[in-house]
Order: sequence, then structure tokens, then C-alpha cells
Amino acid sequence: MTLSVDLADVVEAHRRIRSHIHRTPVMTCRQLDQQVGTRLFFKCENLQKAGAFKSRGACNAVFSLSDEVAQRGFVTHSSGNHAAALARAAARRGVSAQIVMPSNSSGVKIAAVKGYGAAITFCEPNLPAREAAAAELLEASGGTLIHPYDDEAIIAGQGTAAVELLEEVPDLDLIVAPVGGGGLLAGTLIAAKAIQPAVQVIAVEPLGADDAYRSWKSGTWVPSVAPQTVADGLLTSLGTRNFAIIRELVDDIWRVEDAVILRAMQLILERAKLVVEPSAAVPLAGLLEPPAAARTEGKRVGVLLSGGNVDLQRLPLPSTV
Amino acid sequence: MTLSVDLADVVEAHRRIRSHIHRTPVMTCRQLDQQVGTRLFFKCENLQKAGAFKSRGACNAVFSLSDEVAQRGFVTHSSGNHAAALARAAARRGVSAQIVMPSNSSGVKIAAVKGYGAAITFCEPNLPAREAAAAELLEASGGTLIHPYDDEAIIAGQGTAAVELLEEVPDLDLIVAPVGGGGLLAGTLIAAKAIQPAVQVIAVEPLGADDAYRSWKSGTWVPSVAPQTVADGLLTSLGTRNFAIIRELVDDIWRVEDAVILRAMQLILERAKLVVEPSAAVPLAGLLEPPAAARTEGKRVGVLLSGGNVDLQRLPLPSTV
Repeated sequence: MTLSVDLADVVEAHRRIRSHIHRTPVMTCRQLDQQVGTRLFFKCENLQKAGAFKSRGACNAVFSLSDEVAQRGFVTHSSGNHAAALARAAARRGVSAQIVMPSNSSGVKIAAVKGYGAAITFCEPNLPAREAAAAELLEASGGTLIHPYDDEAIIAGQGTAAVELLEEVPDLDLIVAPVGGGGLLAGTLIAAKAIQPAVQVIAVEPLGADDAYRSWKSGTWVPSVAPQTVADGLLTSLGTRNFAIIRELVDDIWRVEDAVILRAMQLILERAKLVVEPSAAVPLAGLLEPPAAARTEGKRVGVLLSGGNVDLQRLPLPSTV
Repeated sequence: MTLSVDLADVVEAHRRIRSHIHRTPVMTCRQLDQQVGTRLFFKCENLQKAGAFKSRGACNAVFSLSDEVAQRGFVTHSSGNHAAALARAAARRGVSAQIVMPSNSSGVKIAAVKGYGAAITFCEPNLPAREAAAAELLEASGGTLIHPYDDEAIIAGQGTAAVELLEEVPDLDLIVAPVGGGGLLAGTLIAAKAIQPAVQVIAVEPLGADDAYRSWKSGTWVPSVAPQTVADGLLTSLGTRNFAIIRELVDDIWRVEDAVILRAMQLILERAKLVVEPSAAVPLAGLLEPPAAARTEGKRVGVLLSGGNVDLQRLPLPSTV
């Protein structure tokens, strides 16, 4: 089967976005190694521009289009990190961005989008309202919709994190990635499996938003219905383009409970001294669970720390939940 | 005047401790640069072993003594980062550490010291009680007291952070450091002024614990009496050895209010995504104040992020104070 994105797309994306993103550091933490029983290599996308890996895909999408198309501007709908990343990417290209955000978006995220100079349209907090508002803006502006994850340019861009990780630590046994819409996971699979066929790629998903797990197990795309998890970046349904790649290439999907996600987040904050959002702690949560721990003991594990945009005033730590 | 520590001591310390500490990364953050109007280079000692620069001095002190002396063990009194750093250094040398901690020390810090296998003696939370308890342990064990800051080996060890910072960013105009007991500041002065005579070194101190400022202004050592600040690592009185160096070499001492320290801490957490303790935010707080900002505009500034051991359950952020 031919997949819609290949390593050449990811390499091309990397060349295209290099000057617009951080090459984020890979960090290690002996205390966490001891806790988990593996050697952990954290790819710090929480230190990425706009605070999340989303800047990779957004820059690739925005800079891959012609001047003629780009100058009509970009539109997306997102309550989260993709909104800020797209706003920033459009600003760097010198074109407009219009972002549809649900009316209950956090003040921090609204401020970030505004800070990059994008125009915000608020809508009711549900998917039909978001899509309707975006469609209206597209019709009025003639701009281009950049979907947060179900898009080949986005997938190729997100895959560049794994390229950098494997450049720095070529002999990984395993890479663990969170899965929500599936952009980061699909990009990681495309890149990692082509660069280093022996590396295993495992997705970790909150138990309360396990549509990727259920889709993968059943072989049929299953939507995310009424998801419930503290990992607010992983609520969305898997993209269909993403599912096609994940179904083909992923080695396993683990599910974790929110209590373990929060414990993992606390460990990263307290031990690694890195600010991460709950979604970014999901891969480590997977490694903390006893069955996974038995399977990964002694291995060299790359961990994608996907983002660091968390409301510090309401830091969800285990004892406060 | 001949000072009690020179660059050769710092270089020797660096060689001695290199295998026992992290060479911590130097990080930059464009958003904070814009906020402050300078180019900031953060030396991330919050990512140091045991979570603070204190591991540098403690390792230097512990590894500079003969086997005969070391095997009798080490003693110190500290409620904070030096306690954990000394416990860790002694464990690496395979000798015992006895730590006197005030009975009101935080649970997190007690757990860290225990985690490194040191024996803890609790005492009343005041300096005479701490010194008396330490004296008793010294007499019983024949061990060696490692003072947290008023000690040449400690000063030389702390100076190694500035050596690494200037290796990575040789053309700094300015280095800003927090000052409490003065170990980090004195070591930084010795190293930076010898390596790069043109670099200015500025200390920043909480207004509610400004004994270094008052000592420096008056030319006479002034103790810290009833200090009040959120920067709990900077409550202590300046060491006399440290004062002799600081008086000779420091370019300026700025004082900052707690509200600005908390704002700086929030900026580091939210923008740089690094977990720091309030004391570590004091240098950035100095740069945020308008008079300093005018003097530093456009300069290249090294910022010593001294440590990251903060109780996340009680994160002191501006709006919660």
C-alpha cells in the first residue's frame, strides 16, 4: 500500500521550515530513568516556537504554498496549539490568518493567537459551529484552510521532530508519542520507520479518549464521542489520512488513565524541571504502567514531549485532582 | 588585594567535578528577549544534578579532600539545595553525610536528602540550633563541616557555571546573578572577571533580604536580620569570605521587590517553559525593572538560573499572592 506521505516529504519539510522553528534539545534525566527502568531521551517540543510541535506542521503548510495562494491568507479552527502555531507561521510569511476559536477557549491561548497578530472569530464550542464559521471565512476571503492534523503537509511537518531525534540518538529501540488527531504520530511513523526500520513506534492515548485505539483494534475509523480526559490536546477524533498511516505502521497503542497522566506530568515538572502540558505527559504515563514497564526495561526510549502550554494558575497535579 | 580564590582554583574545580555534574544547557527565548529588550542567555542550573548549582560547590568540596579525611564523613546544616547537593556528593564518594535540617523544612527537600542516603538530624528552625546540632555531630563523627557558601572550595565550585557560560557565549556584556550567602556570586565574579575582564557582573537581591546591598554600600559586613522574601534561597546572611570578593569585584547590586520576582518567575515558566524556584527568577526580575532595562537595552546578558526546586503544589504566582 502506498501511503500519502513519505520520508522525502518529511525531509523536504525539514529543509523548508528549518529557519522558522527551533531545533529543540534532547534532554535526559537520570532520576526519571531510574523511575522507569529505561534510558529516556526527551525531545523537548515544549520548548518549540509557540510552545508545541504544532509550529512544525503549520510552518510547512504555510511555506509550501505559492505566493499567489498565500497572499489570500489562511484560515483554521482550533482552540489550542495549532491556532497559535498557524497565527505565527502566517505572520512570518507576512500574510493574514483568521482563526475560529470556541468561545470557551482559555485566556492564555486567546492571548497567544492575538499576540501573533491573527484575527479571531469566536463560535459556539462544538465542531459543526467551528466548521461553519471557518467555511464562512474561507468563502469571504478566498483563503486556504489549514486543518490541524488531517493534512499531508501538516503530517510531514510534524515528522521532522523524529528526524532530529534520530539524528541525535540514532540507536533508539523505541519512540513513544501521544495520539489525538494523529498528526504527530503519523509523521513520526513515516519518518522513524524509514530512517531506522528497527525502531518501534508506540502511541499512547488517554483511556477516556481512546478512539485511535478502538479504530486500530477494529480496523475501522471510529470517531471520538464525548471524550473525557485531562489531556486537553488529545480530545479530537483521529484524522482519516492519519488513520491510514497509523493502521499500517504503528507497533502498538497503549491506553493510560488520567491519574497516571497527572503523575507523569508531575514527574516531568519536578524531576526534569520542564513545563509540559498534560497531553505531553501521556507517553511517559504509558511507560509508568507496569505491563509497559516490563516490556521496555533496559531499552533506549525516545519520548516526544509534545507541548508546554498549560495554565500554571490551574496546574492539575495529582493531589489537587 | 589578594583574594582567597582565583581562576586557577575554579579551573581546577571544573576539572575535578566534571564527571559528577551536568554541563547544563544555555537556553535562549525570543519572547523574553523582546520583553526585556536584551539578548538573554540562560545558564540552566535548574537542570543541574539535584536541581541547583549547589551540586558544583558540594562536589568540589567533597572531592578535594583526601581519602583519610573523606572517610570520616561530611556534616552540614541546610534546609535547602545545599543539603541535597552535599548528600548526593557524599554518596558519589561513597562516604556518609549527616545533614542538620530545621524541623520546618519542606517535605520535598527532606525526601531529596533521604533519597541520596544521608542521615538527617532535625533541629529548631534557627541558626544557633542548627550550628549547635552540627557541632555535636562533628564532635561525635570526626567528620568535616562543609559550609553552604562561606568556604573557598564551595566558591570555586560555584564559579564553574560562569566558566561554561562564557565558553558557550564568549561575548557577553553582562552577567546577572542572585545573591544570598554569596557563593554563586563570588565564584562568578572570580571566574568571569578573570576570563573576560570587560564583562560586567551584577548581583540582584530581594529588597526584603538586602544585606549584601547594605554591606556593599556601607563597606562593612551587615547581617541579614529578619529577612522577608518569597525567594527562600536568599534569606541567609552574606558569608564573610564571599563579601571580601564581592566588595572587590561586583559592578553593581540591584534590589527587587517580591512582586517583580514572582512576575519574572511566571515569565520563565510560561515563556521559557522551565521550572525555576523564586530565587532563580531574581536576576530576571532585576532586568524587568525600568532603570535596569534602560541600562541594559540591546546588550547580551548571561542570566544564572540558579535552581528549580519549588513546591509545585504551592507555586507562588503573581495572581495567587
